[in-house]
Amino acid sequence: MTQLSSDDLREFYSAGARVMTRSLIRELLKLTRRGGMISFAGGLPDPATFPVNELKHITSDILDKQPHLALQYGPTEGDTNLKDELVRWMGKDGIDVGRDQILITSGSQQGLDLVGRVFLDPGDPLIVELPSYMAGLQVFRSCRAEMIGVPQDDAGMRTDLLEQTLARLAREGRRPKFIYVVPDFQNPSGVTMTEERRRMVLELARAYRSLVVEDNPYRELRFEGTPVPPIMSLDRDGRVVYLSTFSKTLAPGLRIAWMAASEELIRQFVTAKQGVDLCCPSLTQAIAAEYCARGHIYKHLPRITALYRTKRDIMLRALEREMPPGVSWTKPEGGLFLWVRLPEGMDTEQLLSTAVEDEGVAYVVGSGFHADGGGKNAMRLNFSFPSEEHIEEGIKRLASVVKKHLPAAYAREPSRGPRSP
Amino acid sequence: MTQLSSDDLREFYSAGARVMTRSLIRELLKLTRRGGMISFAGGLPDPATFPVNELKHITSDILDKQPHLALQYGPTEGDTNLKDELVRWMGKDGIDVGRDQILITSGSQQGLDLVGRVFLDPGDPLIVELPSYMAGLQVFRSCRAEMIGVPQDDAGMRTDLLEQTLARLAREGRRPKFIYVVPDFQNPSGVTMTEERRRMVLELARAYRSLVVEDNPYRELRFEGTPVPPIMSLDRDGRVVYLSTFSKTLAPGLRIAWMAASEELIRQFVTAKQGVDLCCPSLTQAIAAEYCARGHIYKHLPRITALYRTKRDIMLRALEREMPPGVSWTKPEGGLFLWVRLPEGMDTEQLLSTAVEDEGVAYVVGSGFHADGGGKNAMRLNFSFPSEEHIEEGIKRLASVVKKHLPAAYAREPSRGPRSP
Repeated sequence: MTQLSSDDLREFYSAGARVMTRSLIRELLKLTRRGGMISFAGGLPDPATFPVNELKHITSDILDKQPHLALQYGPTEGDTNLKDELVRWMGKDGIDVGRDQILITSGSQQGLDLVGRVFLDPGDPLIVELPSYMAGLQVFRSCRAEMIGVPQDDAGMRTDLLEQTLARLAREGRRPKFIYVVPDFQNPSGVTMTEERRRMVLELARAYRSLVVEDNPYRELRFEGTPVPPIMSLDRDGRVVYLSTFSKTLAPGLRIAWMAASEELIRQFVTAKQGVDLCCPSLTQAIAAEYCARGHIYKHLPRITALYRTKRDIMLRALEREMPPGVSWTKPEGGLFLWVRLPEGMDTEQLLSTAVEDEGVAYVVGSGFHADGGGKNAMRLNFSFPSEEHIEEGIKRLASVVKKHLPAAYAREPSRGPRSP
Repeated sequence: MTQLSSDDLREFYSAGARVMTRSLIRELLKLTRRGGMISFAGGLPDPATFPVNELKHITSDILDKQPHLALQYGPTEGDTNLKDELVRWMGKDGIDVGRDQILITSGSQQGLDLVGRVFLDPGDPLIVELPSYMAGLQVFRSCRAEMIGVPQDDAGMRTDLLEQTLARLAREGRRPKFIYVVPDFQNPSGVTMTEERRRMVLELARAYRSLVVEDNPYRELRFEGTPVPPIMSLDRDGRVVYLSTFSKTLAPGLRIAWMAASEELIRQFVTAKQGVDLCCPSLTQAIAAEYCARGHIYKHLPRITALYRTKRDIMLRALEREMPPGVSWTKPEGGLFLWVRLPEGMDTEQLLSTAVEDEGVAYVVGSGFHADGGGKNAMRLNFSFPSEEHIEEGIKRLASVVKKHLPAAYAREPSRGPRSP
């Protein structure tokens, strides 16, 4: 008897499974375990931000006082106490929802997956930013939907181009199921969409009878500047599906995130989640609820943003110091990432093996974030996880790779040299 | 501005979302919160079985010793320590797998969902038992697959009828993607498949080039008799996908379950899970791993089975005492459920509102477990969750509903009366 071969097994796979690709991010994370490697490729929070003592007290209290609830199955919609805390938490951003407009999910990734399941059939059009969140693109790709990219500039999605795209689709008798945006400190670009653009996205969605999926995991991580209202806070139609998470503000290992939308849509997402995993862990939900109820979440945020602000500044200064002319980057007001553009014609995918194998530094290639295959000369750098020393050293290594491969036109210009101030 | 209406929103839903139905089980669970209600409808473990003290010590130790791991993102495949414990745990049942043949899932429900995603396209045939696990049927239905039912008897799935079905499909040029079975103390029937039948299912799967999905959440809950080898322990081809869980042996609120299969298939399931939720909570995985490593899981089981054996016996005695002639039920050697058949022509769906509203007793109707719409005269009763007093009283109430609606042929026979021994 012989084991079933890969070929044998392939015959059993669904059409969706055949187009599933392993996450580049997840695969790259494996590289970071090698000794001496400095990785800007991940998107992990700094574990120094985890409120370990608070979580220890809370968990112990929960297992003392309500073990029968915390260890039992719970409602698919999520823990009622947690939902009530989230009503308050979102209220501070002007998002006015009731308890029945919230569904607790296993990370925002599950929210994206539920969005894909509930809305997308093969061939359905939807709008994404160029660039956009890689794991979101993967979900929509596995639904075999048609992703139509609209470029971003420093003010967020170009709404003039969005309007042209929607008008073109309308002429073809089509409309996108939704417009997917990450408005605050976008992953990967670090760009924040202006209020004017947010209002325009919502207005265009209404005019062209589409929905908006607002994915907002980084909103609380603002280092400076004035918060811009979430699109959902501007919505009066029930047209926005909002995704948020505690992965960046509490701890990702709890996998607590949530969706907010109209009651009608939440009912549909709940029905989908019943088939997906019945409910999220009662224990981790109870921990998150209590963390909010005790006010820790409100007190803890300034510590996280202070730490990440320092790291961002170190990375920006190192880029300034190390990178040759022709290289540019974003200066995000918050979040975990910045976005580096090399001169046109350079290919970060080609550079990656040199970077990883010769120099011991990793990043994510820009093309992974582009629904249209663009972004070849771009890369995403994470500054939340690596230590301050690693940021300094890693950018030095990265600059050395870039300089070696710089087109002649740039290489001939005077370089600031690796050690100049 | 007006809110988007239900009709507006329906236009956005995918074909899959339009066929999703809210779980009857989950909806019925809501009834059980009414005062005075006795519910046999759920499938919850008795919270008295939760090892609260052990979990308290373990959680505190984890947050002392490895908080940075337990609160961080983890690998999609699952916690390595937990996978190593599961290799040992399955080894005791003759299942010989390596660490890379395991994927940790958020409950077995997520395993079923991944099975659906990876294998099923609309219209694909698969084989299910009659009756079969309701939430499994819901997953396969939402994939719009074609479920073909094969009846069960007291020895499990009728393999003679399975062979006829496979032969018929082969003549039509079709083959089922897989055969879905719950071999131990099946949900809903309580029936255990004999070893001979298990070997035959595997043999037929090989002969007709199909796979077997063996869903085995109740295996450890054996009250008496000899364990029968899991189908996976008999497999030499990598043809079986095995699902198991700690929801019934530790605590469902941790949502820790797993899949075991060939390395090739596990890689495909991991790829699918990346898009679904990235990874399970690191904290709950670490708790489960440590619960195994300290040997608690091995010591704890006899306490659970003793409790449930007592409850089953009370339910069997109450049925014997209360039910009129013409009513029959299974006598499961383990698990959480038994299956009651009323005389042909009776309809448990019609009786349900009387049972719930007039008598304050709930069950799940048999038709929900039948891919072919059968089982109208059957009901599933859960004996793990209700208290001993509630089992006595609830069966009395149920018998009273049944007697009121008994067809004349049975009603005329002498009844044993509600209080006879």
